[in-house]
Amino acid sequence: MKSPKLLIRPLVRGLHPYVYGEQPKIKGLIKLNTNESPYPPSPKVLAAVRAAVDGRLRLYPNPTAERLREKLAKLHRCHADNIIVGNGSDELLALATRCFVEPVAADINRRKTRAFTSAATIQYFTTSYSLYPVLADIHGAARNAVPLKSDFSLPSVTELKDGRGKPPKGGTPNRWDFRAALTFVTTPNAPSGRGYSTRELGALCKAQRGVVVLDEAYVDFAGENALKLALKYPHVLVARTFSKAYSLCFQRVGYFVGHRDLIAALHKVRDSYNVNGLGQIAAEATLDDLPYYRANFKKIITTREWLSRELTKLGFRVLPSRTNFILARPSRFSAPAWLQSLRGQKILVRWFGRPEVKDYLRITIGTVTEAEALVSAVRTILMWR
Amino acid sequence: MKSPKLLIRPLVRGLHPYVYGEQPKIKGLIKLNTNESPYPPSPKVLAAVRAAVDGRLRLYPNPTAERLREKLAKLHRCHADNIIVGNGSDELLALATRCFVEPVAADINRRKTRAFTSAATIQYFTTSYSLYPVLADIHGAARNAVPLKSDFSLPSVTELKDGRGKPPKGGTPNRWDFRAALTFVTTPNAPSGRGYSTRELGALCKAQRGVVVLDEAYVDFAGENALKLALKYPHVLVARTFSKAYSLCFQRVGYFVGHRDLIAALHKVRDSYNVNGLGQIAAEATLDDLPYYRANFKKIITTREWLSRELTKLGFRVLPSRTNFILARPSRFSAPAWLQSLRGQKILVRWFGRPEVKDYLRITIGTVTEAEALVSAVRTILMWR
Repeated sequence: MKSPKLLIRPLVRGLHPYVYGEQPKIKGLIKLNTNESPYPPSPKVLAAVRAAVDGRLRLYPNPTAERLREKLAKLHRCHADNIIVGNGSDELLALATRCFVEPVAADINRRKTRAFTSAATIQYFTTSYSLYPVLADIHGAARNAVPLKSDFSLPSVTELKDGRGKPPKGGTPNRWDFRAALTFVTTPNAPSGRGYSTRELGALCKAQRGVVVLDEAYVDFAGENALKLALKYPHVLVARTFSKAYSLCFQRVGYFVGHRDLIAALHKVRDSYNVNGLGQIAAEATLDDLPYYRANFKKIITTREWLSRELTKLGFRVLPSRTNFILARPSRFSAPAWLQSLRGQKILVRWFGRPEVKDYLRITIGTVTEAEALVSAVRTILMWR
Repeated sequence: MKSPKLLIRPLVRGLHPYVYGEQPKIKGLIKLNTNESPYPPSPKVLAAVRAAVDGRLRLYPNPTAERLREKLAKLHRCHADNIIVGNGSDELLALATRCFVEPVAADINRRKTRAFTSAATIQYFTTSYSLYPVLADIHGAARNAVPLKSDFSLPSVTELKDGRGKPPKGGTPNRWDFRAALTFVTTPNAPSGRGYSTRELGALCKAQRGVVVLDEAYVDFAGENALKLALKYPHVLVARTFSKAYSLCFQRVGYFVGHRDLIAALHKVRDSYNVNGLGQIAAEATLDDLPYYRANFKKIITTREWLSRELTKLGFRVLPSRTNFILARPSRFSAPAWLQSLRGQKILVRWFGRPEVKDYLRITIGTVTEAEALVSAVRTILMWR
């Protein structure tokens, strides 16, 4: 019998898994590391889910999340055929790679031609959501990572055509590929928090020949959204999630909006019953109580602006944020040292080792009390270190 | 702008999606078509889920279903590293294709060699779970479908080596491939309901060089299970689900047991948070109340034996079943005609058009009352048609 490792595809053997934020087991920690909402789901949502916990759990859920898609279609003024619901938007991002991108090795004869390279390319800006390169690697696709501008703003189409946006030093100066099979844009950006206007996103979409996914996981904390681009351009999909803004991380519900042909193709490659039933019910009830969530967004935005000002006063460089987190660069001590010191004060934040953001901390906006505790912990650390 | 259809991989454009059993919206139907348990989850499970529906829904679930894996490890006397939990066992079957099987087109130069063909092959018996060919097609793998014996029993290793088990007439006489990258065995078999002994499954596993998934979705209704083979052979995985026997279809929880190297590889290709939180809680609570479920299995088995006898008296040929459904061939009228007539009597059963089973109805075992209603409907139809 050969070693079990040899039974695994060489591609998979070489993979590094995605590193997710810590889910701590220690009680009393203030958790500002994975961009969850600090507020619970609406009481109506909790009531709707509780009311559904009965003998019906024995039955399969609706395989296409039909009622939820209908409600979403009404909200976004489109048709239910323009929507696919996923087990979190992460599942949909993975489905998009399998649906629109050829694996690099898929046809070795065509592999070196320009057209084939684009057909096998997943493209994204750096820095953005760290899942995209993982998805490319799992699928065996080529990655094309092109840097944002130094302030994390979006290069214009002209700049991308001119081949600007090269990495500051070292690394491969990847050129933007307007024919890439699949382009992911995190908008507003993570982990920088920067927002992008629909105008500039529209110009990028217009110039792009492959599928573009506008990943709007944080859009409810921004001033505008680009949903209309998904209904205008047949090659543009907008990704949304109930996880963060809608306090439903636990139940895994996200969705894509886009052209019915792309949506139909995604339906063909998903698992038959991909969205759990209580998640569907929770998401439906959420759409019936949007004012509750809009009030939360306002609170989070107010806290974000207050926290940004306070940390700035304490010497941090805080980037302007259109999300429910901020990226902040300390003026003293390294970012990983802050990560440890804050943990000592029972506050969990996030630090990424990637070169573009290694000097920053990413801090989720919590409640007012949590933000005050953070500021107080920062003061203590600055005083004693 | 090119047509959106051209943005979709040719492979995906050519796919036919899996056809799942109807989830009817009409009230008062007796639903014997998708093998759900007729009994609700245990009161303790419902209470545990209800108690968890609070502000914690805002948080991400445990990304590896850690507590559930620990409980399962204790139950099966193995280590938590021998277990991966999925969004239903369907997700795990799909992950296995991506983890262990090369797409056919992955290397055109090696494509015609025998070794490469095996590396790109998903193999299964016909008839078995209709998802397997769909998974092969989605992944771009070769299918090797080899018929069971005419009574749906498993060909012996000697028979498979001799190339027996050819289709009765027409079709490609596929030879069994002992080097196939991935072999799926539905045990007990669906849709025939036939059980296979651990002895014969062990002999097959021993002869097989690639990964073997023993898909035990219905094993709780059989006399024995083959779990020990997953702990004995490093290339064998056993698939289980909380859906059917444990009345949790709605919440999507299944798992694999097997060698830690194979399990670790599967973890690398799954979504980060693939199992929803309330599903994890429901499954954990289920394991704390197994006697409730074992009592249900007994009731279902008693009903199955009674229903089999009654339908036999009414002229049906009922295959011996080790599952929570029966496959029954009517002596008068076609199987699709029965499907329609029973629907007219508000009873939903399942019919598959595949040649091996097109003369049969698959009937899920419901409650005693539902089984009696079915027998009564059959009598009515026989009397009036």
